[in-house]
Amino acid sequence: MLPKLKRRLFLILEVWTIHDSFSKIFDFFIITLIVLNVIAVSLATVADLRQRYYVLFQNFEYFSIAAFSIEYLLRLWSCTIDEHYKHPLWGRIKYMFTPLALIDLMAVLPFYLPMMIPDMRAARLFRLIRFLRFFKLTRYLKSFNLIKSVLNNKKEELIMTLGMVIILLFFSGSIIYFLENEAQPEQFANIPLAIWWAVVTLTTVGYGDVYPITPWGRLLGAVLAITGIGIIALPAGIIASGFAEVIEERKAQKYQVTTFICPHCGKMINSNDLKHARHRIKKEEIIEEWD
Amino acid sequence: MLPKLKRRLFLILEVWTIHDSFSKIFDFFIITLIVLNVIAVSLATVADLRQRYYVLFQNFEYFSIAAFSIEYLLRLWSCTIDEHYKHPLWGRIKYMFTPLALIDLMAVLPFYLPMMIPDMRAARLFRLIRFLRFFKLTRYLKSFNLIKSVLNNKKEELIMTLGMVIILLFFSGSIIYFLENEAQPEQFANIPLAIWWAVVTLTTVGYGDVYPITPWGRLLGAVLAITGIGIIALPAGIIASGFAEVIEERKAQKYQVTTFICPHCGKMINSNDLKHARHRIKKEEIIEEWD
Amino acid sequence: MLPKLKRRLFLILEVWTIHDSFSKIFDFFIITLIVLNVIAVSLATVADLRQRYYVLFQNFEYFSIAAFSIEYLLRLWSCTIDEHYKHPLWGRIKYMFTPLALIDLMAVLPFYLPMMIPDMRAARLFRLIRFLRFFKLTRYLKSFNLIKSVLNNKKEELIMTLGMVIILLFFSGSIIYFLENEAQPEQFANIPLAIWWAVVTLTTVGYGDVYPITPWGRLLGAVLAITGIGIIALPAGIIASGFAEVIEERKAQKYQVTTFICPHCGKMINSNDLKHARHRIKKEEIIEEWD
Amino acid sequence: MLPKLKRRLFLILEVWTIHDSFSKIFDFFIITLIVLNVIAVSLATVADLRQRYYVLFQNFEYFSIAAFSIEYLLRLWSCTIDEHYKHPLWGRIKYMFTPLALIDLMAVLPFYLPMMIPDMRAARLFRLIRFLRFFKLTRYLKSFNLIKSVLNNKKEELIMTLGMVIILLFFSGSIIYFLENEAQPEQFANIPLAIWWAVVTLTTVGYGDVYPITPWGRLLGAVLAITGIGIIALPAGIIASGFAEVIEERKAQKYQVTTFICPHCGKMINSNDLKHARHRIKKEEIIEEWD
Repeated sequence: MLPKLKRRLFLILEVWTIHDSFSKIFDFFIITLIVLNVIAVSLATVADLRQRYYVLFQNFEYFSIAAFSIEYLLRLWSCTIDEHYKHPLWGRIKYMFTPLALIDLMAVLPFYLPMMIPDMRAARLFRLIRFLRFFKLTRYLKSFNLIKSVLNNKKEELIMTLGMVIILLFFSGSIIYFLENEAQPEQFANIPLAIWWAVVTLTTVGYGDVYPITPWGRLLGAVLAITGIGIIALPAGIIASGFAEVIEERKAQKYQVTTFICPHCGKMINSNDLKHARHRIKKEEIIEEWD
Repeated sequence: MLPKLKRRLFLILEVWTIHDSFSKIFDFFIITLIVLNVIAVSLATVADLRQRYYVLFQNFEYFSIAAFSIEYLLRLWSCTIDEHYKHPLWGRIKYMFTPLALIDLMAVLPFYLPMMIPDMRAARLFRLIRFLRFFKLTRYLKSFNLIKSVLNNKKEELIMTLGMVIILLFFSGSIIYFLENEAQPEQFANIPLAIWWAVVTLTTVGYGDVYPITPWGRLLGAVLAITGIGIIALPAGIIASGFAEVIEERKAQKYQVTTFICPHCGKMINSNDLKHARHRIKKEEIIEEWD
Repeated sequence: MLPKLKRRLFLILEVWTIHDSFSKIFDFFIITLIVLNVIAVSLATVADLRQRYYVLFQNFEYFSIAAFSIEYLLRLWSCTIDEHYKHPLWGRIKYMFTPLALIDLMAVLPFYLPMMIPDMRAARLFRLIRFLRFFKLTRYLKSFNLIKSVLNNKKEELIMTLGMVIILLFFSGSIIYFLENEAQPEQFANIPLAIWWAVVTLTTVGYGDVYPITPWGRLLGAVLAITGIGIIALPAGIIASGFAEVIEERKAQKYQVTTFICPHCGKMINSNDLKHARHRIKKEEIIEEWD
Repeated sequence: MLPKLKRRLFLILEVWTIHDSFSKIFDFFIITLIVLNVIAVSLATVADLRQRYYVLFQNFEYFSIAAFSIEYLLRLWSCTIDEHYKHPLWGRIKYMFTPLALIDLMAVLPFYLPMMIPDMRAARLFRLIRFLRFFKLTRYLKSFNLIKSVLNNKKEELIMTLGMVIILLFFSGSIIYFLENEAQPEQFANIPLAIWWAVVTLTTVGYGDVYPITPWGRLLGAVLAITGIGIIALPAGIIASGFAEVIEERKAQKYQVTTFICPHCGKMINSNDLKHARHRIKKEEIIEEWD
């Protein structure tokens, strides 16, 4: 009975591989818990809230650590079902060093470590590291398939665009440095700062912490900002054509159409229009012609 | 005669279902009144204008309430024409709880309620709620068909993009908090504030109320702003391919083309090119071959 | 000889209708003069430059007025060549009231009027109106054909998007007013000001003159800014599919392909692949089959 | 042996023309050195870093100059392999004046010149000019082929969009000047400054150094900012359709499909579906029918 339970557990812990409502509930529970953890870690940095809801944060932390620890141990126990990790000891050690298992470990370890190394400074650091729990979502991100395949198809063009942006940033940063350095020695004190301005301008963020004030500096700023519009347009265009391609491919796979000539009248019929054909064509015949 | 009037009224109150110029005029009148109400409610919050045109605002309010009340009552009276609400009493009560009817009620109720509950505080609240009249436009938004169907087709990808954005915001917000908290303990006081910065940067809004000042913070800011360009590109690409698809489908439905072989010469002709064909093909024949 | 000169002049004054190098030089001269006028009017508002180059600005103004006046009179003289304005008197008066002729008149009139009505205040106003000369470019904008036809094809969707934006602005403006009014009674003093904030946020401009400071206000701001990304994506997608459509149509017109069956071997050939066909097909035959 | 070495060297110095791992290593080394130079020149403007790592910057500069000088001399020596520059003297002089060779010279010359003209002011200028080394990357940018061909195909539309943007900027700049000049005589002191505001608004940068404060100015600002969204959409749409076209062309070239009729059954088969055909068709036959 135990091996059967282990197999069942293994399938539940896997992501949506089977149409198993219990597996879905489990996934939903873990995802919700991760999201709540991230929100809790965020809110706990607000001094006001931390003091008022101290006990609540504390208890939620204990509950999360318990849940994640049990999840980790169950994964470690049931992983031997997988062919790759089937050895009771070495298989489990091998599993422990897979990226996803390491992430799961990192999610709980910062809680247990300070117990062993009682050092206040380390404790604070470990508390911050709790944010790494967010990475536990990685396991569920596999479903971002379409977007990922589009980005993958267009990797080359997107990297080129990035390259152009970086060259443009260094270039315009250096020029603005020469143009504005004298007028604003504080704001444009050096080229890295000038590049910071170029980033803020080219991406059209425009905080307003640095901006040109000389006529030539403003002219360059205007050119850069207008170029920024084009730079935004490039990835948009690349990604748009990427989506169009991927969708077209999928559609082509779905509606594979065969065109053939009706043996009775010579009219061309495609497989989608079979039911509208003038002559009744025997199904065996057609199926024979398809494959 | 009354049933006939009721039926006529019902058709007029419906949105553009019939080619009836009186119905169009009525729709135009209601839409204009809603828009003017929204503008009036906006302008009435400007202290200066409120004092100067007090009587005008007041009278316009009375007129609007009268018009909307009459519209509501007429809808309630004529709704029994619809099969769903045909019972004189229960049908009307059922109709009153449809979303659109509730919106219509909310548009006028805040005016009548204070008369029954004479409380200054409630009166103020009810005055503010007048803005809900805007929702009366919902009835007319049904015509945003194309955009809605595109957004609907691409719902999944857009939600994924939103998910990626939210993950990115929490993630970069947490990192910037660790990088900038010491240098600017006020601006980056806690992670929610740091996430606010991340939103302002990733969406390229860039108010300038918070911005990184440390070199590493600025590097992260630059990365986030450049990522922002890619993030803007994603929905643009998704929606572009969505529009292309929907338009292609409609075109395909419109220009359904049949290709067949001319019985006289064996040349392939498609149904669009019939008039340019070398041999005159009898219409009956073709129609026979089409269907 | 005079009628011939008039006809020649008429063709020169027309925009690029004939392949006439003199007409092109004339168009180029007028466009350059308009652009220089616009730049001069701009620069003349810079107190520093106005004082230093007063004579230069003055002389350029005289030269421009002379050139534009002569152009206007020549147009008025030669317009009778056009069938619509062929009557020597009424035709010319009719021509004077066409939009383009009115723009030409407005470009020079502000210079002559003050001579007749010697009033300092009017003179200043007329000086400002000189900027209207920019509209003389309208005549040459006819060549923005592709962009115009795309925008025209997609007019409906773009207007719907604009409608959605306006509804969103009023809506979020009203909500932020209720959320931030108490915390920042100056910045969010009334709904029109709050809508100004909404515009600045939704379009991702983000001047930083107004921004939310309460948690709920910031949450709404974040939602609005992220929505802004989607809102930018909508017209981008609409226009992208518009360009794709128009270009496809043009290509279809250009490469109208006819498919036919080779009379010698029965293989299907399309008109583009004729030269690669196995059997030499006589040109007359094919041309006959095309039309 | 020397001519053979020269030929080998020439091929190595060329960009990725041959599948030669040594050539790739050389290219990688030069690109890395250029990038490091650009970063070093940037960082050397930070007063703090310049003082602390003075010796490091100095030595890296010597090393770079040495490497770039040797590269330049080797190019000059081996260029005679190319037919265009085969004359030992005139060919080399001709090569020296090609754009890429001039860029290579400019990368090292500012270092040697001050030795001859010992003038402090010139020295400083020459130090700044070092940034020109960035242009050495030009040689390697040839691989940005796809993006370049898209931008090239759509040059006309993109220039038109730019033209529309410039007209819009002048136009809205002039109007805002009239609207805001009185309320903010400093910020909107003249039309060029007002155009600067228009750029910052239309491109949605929004620094916050200038923004309208009068109701009408804000209305114009809102219109301009919303137009800005459309203006961003235009190039995005243009580029998206450009990418789609170029990719379609390439695919068409790759998957050139021929459709023909099976000699045995009369069914239409296209060249991609050959292996799925009902009757085994002899390869010779098909190849014959293809070309």
